[in-house]
Amino acid sequence: MSPPADAHPATGETGHKTSRAQTTSVSSIPDTARPRRPTVLSDIQDTISHPGNVRINVQGAFIVDEEQPSTPKSEDYEHDPKDIRLPNHTAVVSHVAVDIGGSLAKLVYFSREHGDDSGGRLNFLKFETDRIDTCIEFMRKLKDDHKQNNGSARGELCVMATGGGAFKYYDRITEALGVEVTREDEMECLIIGLDFFINEIPTEVFTYSEDIPMSFVPFPPDPPNIYPYLLVNIGSGVSMIKVSGPRQYERIGGTSLGGGTLWGLLSMLTGARTFDDMLRLAEKGDNSTVDLLVGDIYGQAYNKIGLKSTHIASSFGKVYKMKRAAERDAEDGCSGDMKNREEAEHVEGSSELPHEPATFRPEDISRSLLYAVSNNIGQIAYLHAEKHGLERIYFGGSFIGGHSQTMNTLSYAIRFWSKGTKQAYFLRHEGYLGSVGAFLKRQPRNWGRRASLDGPRGAA
Amino acid sequence: MSPPADAHPATGETGHKTSRAQTTSVSSIPDTARPRRPTVLSDIQDTISHPGNVRINVQGAFIVDEEQPSTPKSEDYEHDPKDIRLPNHTAVVSHVAVDIGGSLAKLVYFSREHGDDSGGRLNFLKFETDRIDTCIEFMRKLKDDHKQNNGSARGELCVMATGGGAFKYYDRITEALGVEVTREDEMECLIIGLDFFINEIPTEVFTYSEDIPMSFVPFPPDPPNIYPYLLVNIGSGVSMIKVSGPRQYERIGGTSLGGGTLWGLLSMLTGARTFDDMLRLAEKGDNSTVDLLVGDIYGQAYNKIGLKSTHIASSFGKVYKMKRAAERDAEDGCSGDMKNREEAEHVEGSSELPHEPATFRPEDISRSLLYAVSNNIGQIAYLHAEKHGLERIYFGGSFIGGHSQTMNTLSYAIRFWSKGTKQAYFLRHEGYLGSVGAFLKRQPRNWGRRASLDGPRGAA
Repeated sequence: MSPPADAHPATGETGHKTSRAQTTSVSSIPDTARPRRPTVLSDIQDTISHPGNVRINVQGAFIVDEEQPSTPKSEDYEHDPKDIRLPNHTAVVSHVAVDIGGSLAKLVYFSREHGDDSGGRLNFLKFETDRIDTCIEFMRKLKDDHKQNNGSARGELCVMATGGGAFKYYDRITEALGVEVTREDEMECLIIGLDFFINEIPTEVFTYSEDIPMSFVPFPPDPPNIYPYLLVNIGSGVSMIKVSGPRQYERIGGTSLGGGTLWGLLSMLTGARTFDDMLRLAEKGDNSTVDLLVGDIYGQAYNKIGLKSTHIASSFGKVYKMKRAAERDAEDGCSGDMKNREEAEHVEGSSELPHEPATFRPEDISRSLLYAVSNNIGQIAYLHAEKHGLERIYFGGSFIGGHSQTMNTLSYAIRFWSKGTKQAYFLRHEGYLGSVGAFLKRQPRNWGRRASLDGPRGAA
Repeated sequence: MSPPADAHPATGETGHKTSRAQTTSVSSIPDTARPRRPTVLSDIQDTISHPGNVRINVQGAFIVDEEQPSTPKSEDYEHDPKDIRLPNHTAVVSHVAVDIGGSLAKLVYFSREHGDDSGGRLNFLKFETDRIDTCIEFMRKLKDDHKQNNGSARGELCVMATGGGAFKYYDRITEALGVEVTREDEMECLIIGLDFFINEIPTEVFTYSEDIPMSFVPFPPDPPNIYPYLLVNIGSGVSMIKVSGPRQYERIGGTSLGGGTLWGLLSMLTGARTFDDMLRLAEKGDNSTVDLLVGDIYGQAYNKIGLKSTHIASSFGKVYKMKRAAERDAEDGCSGDMKNREEAEHVEGSSELPHEPATFRPEDISRSLLYAVSNNIGQIAYLHAEKHGLERIYFGGSFIGGHSQTMNTLSYAIRFWSKGTKQAYFLRHEGYLGSVGAFLKRQPRNWGRRASLDGPRGAA
């Protein structure tokens, strides 16, 4: 997806409404340590077979870690700090891309650098889908800026849309912006986005372990041999997609127990009002106060089948028992019966029946549910990978959110179930596979202007 | 497991403390309509290869549906109405069996019929594991009755125990009763119990569909060819066991999302205090008020991958969204902003954003979680069955509890995922596989008295 050799900077400049920190620092993992594959041949082939692709110049691309993020905080969206700098892409980009999921809308757009810096960057923003109008409003500003910077001769910005909301909100977006909205298939966009991240962006893909939380994966060999693999995309729900080659994919499964389940249940069970609050709670929690462990049932490990005493036998398996016990205590008052039971419990050394009223810490509930949902996704992912003979499992989607406990649980589940034969991979832009895929999928609306991206063949 | 041909009634009689309805009615499916396999040959072989087995005479066995259950209600236990009548078993049985799980202890014991009725029956009782002392107390009464009816010459009742609690509560039971407690492996007992139900008890195994809620499965051919199969045992947690032959088994997987998860979360989220209350709530619920459906995301079906608009994309996926919306409304008051949004929603026809405060009906929450847990178990069961090439999937464990919605969801999940190639089977005594297996596993403690079971070879 690099430009042809004759590309040269165009003069157009897309709008840049949200002020971003202009002082950037390269990711701590030096770019030079990572081999760059020569892209020209395969990209030309790719362009021949997929003539609609936008030719984004990714030469020298790197992920920006903002040292002092100066983006004004907005209640309307979250601007992800991990911009991707494209120092060599200078042509006008006349489209933005949005992936509208069940809970979040993810927007990707290109902006030119200010001042002396060359090229531009990809910006990544999240909006709540239920407040889709704030996202539409943001795109309107991008459209106005585009027109102001490039003039009407270049035509209007167009919108590449994917995800369920691309259908549900199609009319609303079209009417509100007065632009053409091109709808793209969700699965295909996820795959195009993921392939792009794997092949083109250094320090993007990593494996996770407690010892090495972020171990970056080298670029694949040239020609890239990244297939087949399993993509597990975790948003509100979970989709599992088998990928056999470029744009060869099949949805082989999924589960309704995803991010929406965690957020929904925790918003009812804890005082947490945001997903970040929930994750912070989970970090401080102890799931053994609510989960029934093998040791709670056996008083020891179940050695015969290799289950450790700390293995979770039943998520939330202590809650009902403790509530029942608390109710009985309340009914009994301080009767002798209760005293007897307390003594008996003491002899037994049982930990699951404290006799205070059965209240549960939001921290413990959060951790238990995070474990339960992540473990479950990991197991189902493993089973699907096993069924289809896939060794590499990429986890994408906004659920992960760079959260170490989530990645640790997913990684552990894959290692545990596969006995180490399969590997879990994560991405720093895990929530933007679909929107980046839509961004890259096609030419902007006005096909004839495509030449302008490549430079000299006409500015339309 | 029928007795040899020379068996004749012994005179001993076990105690019968809990008064049971003595007027019994045969299951509405007539026993005569079901072929009885000749048991003598295979049973003799079985006895040779497994000399420790109790020879329960199952000839003419049938499940009793009590017309007027007169068992006195007790807060200590639940006496399952589905006794198994053994009209031809007359020998003394000197043992009871208990399967002590994470939440429930399941007790099985034999009692003689009163009056003119011949033989006896198997009784099935459930206790809460946290109130294990009520279970021990019940066994003490059985022990006293046994002694009273059979005299000290016959030796004391002994206890066959399985499940995690057989280890955790071993000392307590031994000390409280002063009897020998024999511990048996949990998985092995489950399998022995299941094989017994499949091969020996008519109108026990059935398939479920909405059209025919209980379609009984004919007895397997003779010699029985029931292997291989998958047993999915759903208690507090879930175990999945591959069974290749009699007592050939392997635990191949499981999930911590089981009955304990449903009971625990629902006891926190709803006012329900018992599992029955939760199931009643679920029956009246509408999960579409809390679950995010494909239609909610797409505004239509996602035809390309065959997901109907009513397909659950995210369990509880609407909850967080609605809570956020309610919070914004509360913050906004009756501002114009809210009015605009309401109008917009109205135009859109969106159903997931009602503007009353975000409260959720216990009925809807219960149904959603029942669906989520059952669907999830069904999917993981299917994937394990697929991996190991197993076509028949038996569901056991107290979670199911004869509840039609649960069985319907499990059945549907197996059909959906396997595209109709695999079949889900259920049992009327689904909670008692382990305790029946322990009951059948071995001779009572006093090996020499075993002959008394067979009749003439000595009454010891």
